[in-house]
Amino acid sequence: MAKEMITERGVDYSAWYNDIVKNAGLAENSPVRGCMVIKPYGFAIWEKMKDQLDKMFKETGHVNAYFPIFIPKSFLSKEANHVEGFAKECAVVTHYRLKNAEDGSGVVVDPDARLEEELIVRPTSETIIWNTYKDWIHSYRDLPLLINQWANVVRWELRTRAFLRTAEFLWQEGHTAHSSKKEAIEETKTMLDVYAEFAESYMAMPVIKGVKTANERFAGADDTYTIEALMQDGKALQSGTSHFLGQNFAKAFDVKFLNEGNKEEYVWATSWGVSTRLIGGLIMTHSDDDGLVLPPKLAPLQVVIIPIPKANQVITEAVEKIMDSLKAKGISVKYDTDKKKRPGFKFNEYEMKGVPVRIGIGKRDLENNQVEVARRDTKEVFNLPLENLADAIEKLLEDIQNNLLQRSKDFRSQMTSSADTLDEFKDILENKGGFILAHWDGTTETELKIKELTKATIRCIPNDTQDEDGLCILTGKPSKRRVLFAKAY
Amino acid sequence: MAKEMITERGVDYSAWYNDIVKNAGLAENSPVRGCMVIKPYGFAIWEKMKDQLDKMFKETGHVNAYFPIFIPKSFLSKEANHVEGFAKECAVVTHYRLKNAEDGSGVVVDPDARLEEELIVRPTSETIIWNTYKDWIHSYRDLPLLINQWANVVRWELRTRAFLRTAEFLWQEGHTAHSSKKEAIEETKTMLDVYAEFAESYMAMPVIKGVKTANERFAGADDTYTIEALMQDGKALQSGTSHFLGQNFAKAFDVKFLNEGNKEEYVWATSWGVSTRLIGGLIMTHSDDDGLVLPPKLAPLQVVIIPIPKANQVITEAVEKIMDSLKAKGISVKYDTDKKKRPGFKFNEYEMKGVPVRIGIGKRDLENNQVEVARRDTKEVFNLPLENLADAIEKLLEDIQNNLLQRSKDFRSQMTSSADTLDEFKDILENKGGFILAHWDGTTETELKIKELTKATIRCIPNDTQDEDGLCILTGKPSKRRVLFAKAY
Repeated sequence: MAKEMITERGVDYSAWYNDIVKNAGLAENSPVRGCMVIKPYGFAIWEKMKDQLDKMFKETGHVNAYFPIFIPKSFLSKEANHVEGFAKECAVVTHYRLKNAEDGSGVVVDPDARLEEELIVRPTSETIIWNTYKDWIHSYRDLPLLINQWANVVRWELRTRAFLRTAEFLWQEGHTAHSSKKEAIEETKTMLDVYAEFAESYMAMPVIKGVKTANERFAGADDTYTIEALMQDGKALQSGTSHFLGQNFAKAFDVKFLNEGNKEEYVWATSWGVSTRLIGGLIMTHSDDDGLVLPPKLAPLQVVIIPIPKANQVITEAVEKIMDSLKAKGISVKYDTDKKKRPGFKFNEYEMKGVPVRIGIGKRDLENNQVEVARRDTKEVFNLPLENLADAIEKLLEDIQNNLLQRSKDFRSQMTSSADTLDEFKDILENKGGFILAHWDGTTETELKIKELTKATIRCIPNDTQDEDGLCILTGKPSKRRVLFAKAY
Repeated sequence: MAKEMITERGVDYSAWYNDIVKNAGLAENSPVRGCMVIKPYGFAIWEKMKDQLDKMFKETGHVNAYFPIFIPKSFLSKEANHVEGFAKECAVVTHYRLKNAEDGSGVVVDPDARLEEELIVRPTSETIIWNTYKDWIHSYRDLPLLINQWANVVRWELRTRAFLRTAEFLWQEGHTAHSSKKEAIEETKTMLDVYAEFAESYMAMPVIKGVKTANERFAGADDTYTIEALMQDGKALQSGTSHFLGQNFAKAFDVKFLNEGNKEEYVWATSWGVSTRLIGGLIMTHSDDDGLVLPPKLAPLQVVIIPIPKANQVITEAVEKIMDSLKAKGISVKYDTDKKKRPGFKFNEYEMKGVPVRIGIGKRDLENNQVEVARRDTKEVFNLPLENLADAIEKLLEDIQNNLLQRSKDFRSQMTSSADTLDEFKDILENKGGFILAHWDGTTETELKIKELTKATIRCIPNDTQDEDGLCILTGKPSKRRVLFAKAY
């Protein structure tokens, strides 16, 4: 079944992605242009991500709050760079009432109910939040303010793709306020580390941490830090960003505090976010031509048990014991007793949905005190003894989690190249793809020219590359360090 | 401190409510008309509510999903009654782009970016969801569909009050689809029971379960079930509703299924929701003139420990042991070592925030192997031995939870009256307030007339009142049962 439902990656990567989103039941297009419906199984993955991230945010001292979905239009203009980046493709609320159409054809916008000032559906919340912080911050004793919000945001994108780029998406946005530049920069980096830790340890998706070039910075930031992951088609996915906002928003919204020396200063700021885009990254990092592959730590269902060929009392009694022992370890498990579907059909179905471990149990298995186990990542099938099965499954889930990370790391290593000339750079992009470490002269002009020539962009200046003298691949001007290029989503 | 910051309930109930919302740090107005900012402490209460409700929804077989925030205008007109109720005071998105003003004054709406069809920010999601269900439901095997979403919604209210009535609010909306009328009605009632159980066992807020009159029904429902709570000023708060939608939305969006007999039928529907309004109910059920009072099960912080007069090594060592033993029982606890505030100031502060238990520890307490404990509900202060303190605190939290519920039940009993004539009815409303059980002739005309004369509405036809012959208080026509009246929020 699966084979027929999913276009092979090698044939059409983009169709493969869409087929997985559709056939694993993750999301679908809605009648509203660019907005998706996140289906229960897709949403269950987001809930797993959200729960873990929220825990990590709280462990680093943050609390949640909620700010209005609407932003007065004038707020967007208050920070000069911010307005350039965000006051463009927005959903604009102009009226607050509908009325019955006079011809009885339905409802129409009531022209008398025009707002004095238009409201923008938030594309991001810096402006409304810093307008609020003005009243919350007076003294150094009110700082730091470490607040996060889980919310929906809207950016009117022209070309959309499920999870990767949608007009409405779900995200979290942290907005913190600090009494010193140093502390704000530390916060920016701490949250980048939290994102990287989440990506690697939970999503099994290795990421490169680094800082964006001026050209790729968040509109209104002094510095944007990023985690960049590599997808299976050799393109990069910006997976999370953490911004050091300097005093830009404090100045735009006049947010000052009295420092310990009783002198007035502008407040220092950060903001950071990850979104449902991570689900797109998760799909493209691990999945294969048979469907979704999920790391056990984020799988809504970790183990499925399928009776062979169908449930009976003996099998069910054995399964119930197994389920109890798995649940006692906090492992999620489902026993699929649906009689309308044959085992082979079920196998394909759970494969498509990326359930990490499948257990098959038939009469003969029980006679041999064993079960048949299939792991989704490698597709290996083997027998395991009933005795201490839960321990073995727990260990197997860990193995799968580790294997997925290792496999992705190996893929990334293999797909990371160095280029010393533009020709070499172009050749790698054309024939291999992936990350390319290359020298760049540090100017936006060169960066844009390279993009124009090759479609590759500077993903980041990685934190962990070494200083190395070299020459810019485009201009031949001196460079002190390689930066990370790739074509990107 | 507290006394000065909070208007007494008896002096001005509405000001008292606003003072608590403000001084306990729950929420504040935003620059966007009618939209509130939910502050971290207020949001922490919502998170507690959400976590518990979500657990109860999942235990009753529901899963979460997410549907777009925007609804095409034409969708609202598809269900005849629904459009009357919801296509009125809505936020209407008409444009999708801003541009720089030519005079450099900021940004303006780009007139070229007008949407072909306006989008409505969802006031509720029946229409967009049933439009989606059309593709998900084909056969009885696809049913039931038991889906919930946690979301923000917008209703352009003219008169707003924090939590109780705001233009944007947070809520959950369950939308289920069934193959039979019987099953859908059962679902409607099951969810009403879940809400009532949550209100009583977690919020310690007793509620009357019942069904709304035709006049008070949800727009598009065949029946609306409700839980009604009584606030301290004698007014009712509709706290949650569960709607049996019949086949109305299935017909409007043409959602049919093949039943087991292979015949096409329209699908049966329910929807049900509670919102951040519950926080308003929580405040008004328990709080007093010293501030917020929270039931332990929903308190973000259950126990606060305050060193007397300030922290030192001996006290801190003792406190750490207490904290460990409390945390081991899953009790949330904070040790407030802030040296800038004196104990009395802290006492008032935590009283204001409704922290259920306060523990004070000084040198002399330790010498006597005891601590001083204050419970927020009764304001009693007493000593407890250090030995087995965690057990005693655990028991105390249970006592507080139970006491709050009992106190609210007693208040409600005392504030529930019967009236047999309109004069009696008016007299109770004027001099006592509360719930009034009275006979009504069953017509909308009479219901509206009573409302016009007295401002009281029929809150519900309670599930658990007995059949009783009587005469309508307005028309004298025969009635078979008393219904529940009150003035309401």
